[in-house]
Amino acid sequence: MAGKKNFSGVIAPVVTPFGEDGSPDADRFIEHSEWLLEEGCTGLAPFGTNSEANSLGLDERMELLEELVDSGIDAKKLMPGTGMCSTADAAILTQHAVDIGCGGCLMLPPFFYKGVNEEGLFRYYADVIDDVDDDRLRIYLYHIPPVSQVGIPLTLIGRLIKEFPNIVVGLKDSSGDWSNTKAILDAYPGFEVFPGSEVFLLDGLRNGGSGCISATANINPRAIRKVFENWQGPDADTLQAGITATRKAVQAYPMIQVMKALIAHYRNDPVWAKVRPPFTEMAKPDAEKAIQELAEVHGFKLNIPETA
Amino acid sequence: MAGKKNFSGVIAPVVTPFGEDGSPDADRFIEHSEWLLEEGCTGLAPFGTNSEANSLGLDERMELLEELVDSGIDAKKLMPGTGMCSTADAAILTQHAVDIGCGGCLMLPPFFYKGVNEEGLFRYYADVIDDVDDDRLRIYLYHIPPVSQVGIPLTLIGRLIKEFPNIVVGLKDSSGDWSNTKAILDAYPGFEVFPGSEVFLLDGLRNGGSGCISATANINPRAIRKVFENWQGPDADTLQAGITATRKAVQAYPMIQVMKALIAHYRNDPVWAKVRPPFTEMAKPDAEKAIQELAEVHGFKLNIPETA
Repeated sequence: MAGKKNFSGVIAPVVTPFGEDGSPDADRFIEHSEWLLEEGCTGLAPFGTNSEANSLGLDERMELLEELVDSGIDAKKLMPGTGMCSTADAAILTQHAVDIGCGGCLMLPPFFYKGVNEEGLFRYYADVIDDVDDDRLRIYLYHIPPVSQVGIPLTLIGRLIKEFPNIVVGLKDSSGDWSNTKAILDAYPGFEVFPGSEVFLLDGLRNGGSGCISATANINPRAIRKVFENWQGPDADTLQAGITATRKAVQAYPMIQVMKALIAHYRNDPVWAKVRPPFTEMAKPDAEKAIQELAEVHGFKLNIPETA
Repeated sequence: MAGKKNFSGVIAPVVTPFGEDGSPDADRFIEHSEWLLEEGCTGLAPFGTNSEANSLGLDERMELLEELVDSGIDAKKLMPGTGMCSTADAAILTQHAVDIGCGGCLMLPPFFYKGVNEEGLFRYYADVIDDVDDDRLRIYLYHIPPVSQVGIPLTLIGRLIKEFPNIVVGLKDSSGDWSNTKAILDAYPGFEVFPGSEVFLLDGLRNGGSGCISATANINPRAIRKVFENWQGPDADTLQAGITATRKAVQAYPMIQVMKALIAHYRNDPVWAKVRPPFTEMAKPDAEKAIQELAEVHGFKLNIPETA
């Protein structure tokens, strides 16, 4: 593994806004990304699961990423999702991300075919690494079996680290299973492990974790950052309890939709609520009720400026 | 629904050969496609599940399809897979297939996000139809829940037929559940329904089905065609029993790998056995044992010429 860590802290899989016509909206995307960095995110992971990445086309992803870098955001802070079903398309996105200077790539395993063996998954990553053939490449494995169904077993991680020690440098664990995260942390010290939810942020940090890559960092970045900053302090557990409570309150609703509804509401910008198929927006009364419950019952309001 | 059926009979989701360097091999692809049509296939469905479609890149698919049409195969006989996770990429492939004259498109639902609602799936198909905006478009829905996890419920089929009667004209049912196929046939007379396995060919035909779109049509086209030709004759059940037995014998092995191993063996062309990640080839002794068992125990040999 590379000696120096590329990423640490609080990383948001940036939600992707769509314009009136349904196409990705670069202006809103940049505005939200800038706000996330100002509010405490240490990095951004565009094109994660909660970014509706898999509802975007290859070209749309590459264009949005270029717009983000062109806007002045430091590419080193970006860890775009580049894993696809095919090595061919994954290599295109990965090469593109490396070429524009991204600090890392978050790579799903190939997720269409189920029940495949570990050797096949190894070859997928190895083929992409071989195709891209670039020393700057840093891969973060993306383990999210509840959605992708195809997961990344502990032994595969070890084999990839051994074969590509300077390239396969970390992992996002969205299994929701702390025992799996703990097993990875214990097995591969120095590997950059990010739980996929801030619920496990403090537990992760106390066991050598690097931070978290979490959807709800889109709406609660400052409080999550505070846990990261104070994890060795006396208030760590209290602060963690706060962000855990907010996360649990938010994830009681459809995650992507409620986050977009919150952003739309507090930005006073209804277009933000749009989602792409196969998702559908929350019905307006349901969204209003959710926003109200989060504010009144859970004390959660989104500290985001109204769209100018 | 369109009055005249576009497709009927025996359709093979053509297996995709890879060359020594791992890239799709157009020459072997065309040669196999021509053999399938000579042996009795009435149509071809390149880029199905067993074509390793989801292990191919967007560009690779479009190039292979162009090579196939350029080779002289009638585009009207082609029903390429064009369903992707995103409406954007699905629209690119679908538009391309329509532009080069394909008779239909076989469209997976968006398959990354799980547990999505019917409205979201409807919007995916509606958005692609709207984007392509071409009267020549004919969509065959692809229901394969064992792999895609996301399926196409009966009520969604009805809504799509109602909304797009001249475009959404058929379905491939790879659920493996005859009661589902029967329910679709009963609910939507005139809709072109193809079971995803020849095991259900005769049952389908007796209930208004259009034929079958089946992986094993890659290796047993002539016998399957014979059932289609003779389904109202006195030997229909006996003929059906024969192709069912062969199918069951073949699917006892990893399907894609054993079909490619059979083609490689009988064509005397070892390169044919190559598969892409996330799949791995059968170990050579396992493949040889499978070929021998299929020949000796089940009397199945592949009637295919050796590669010149």
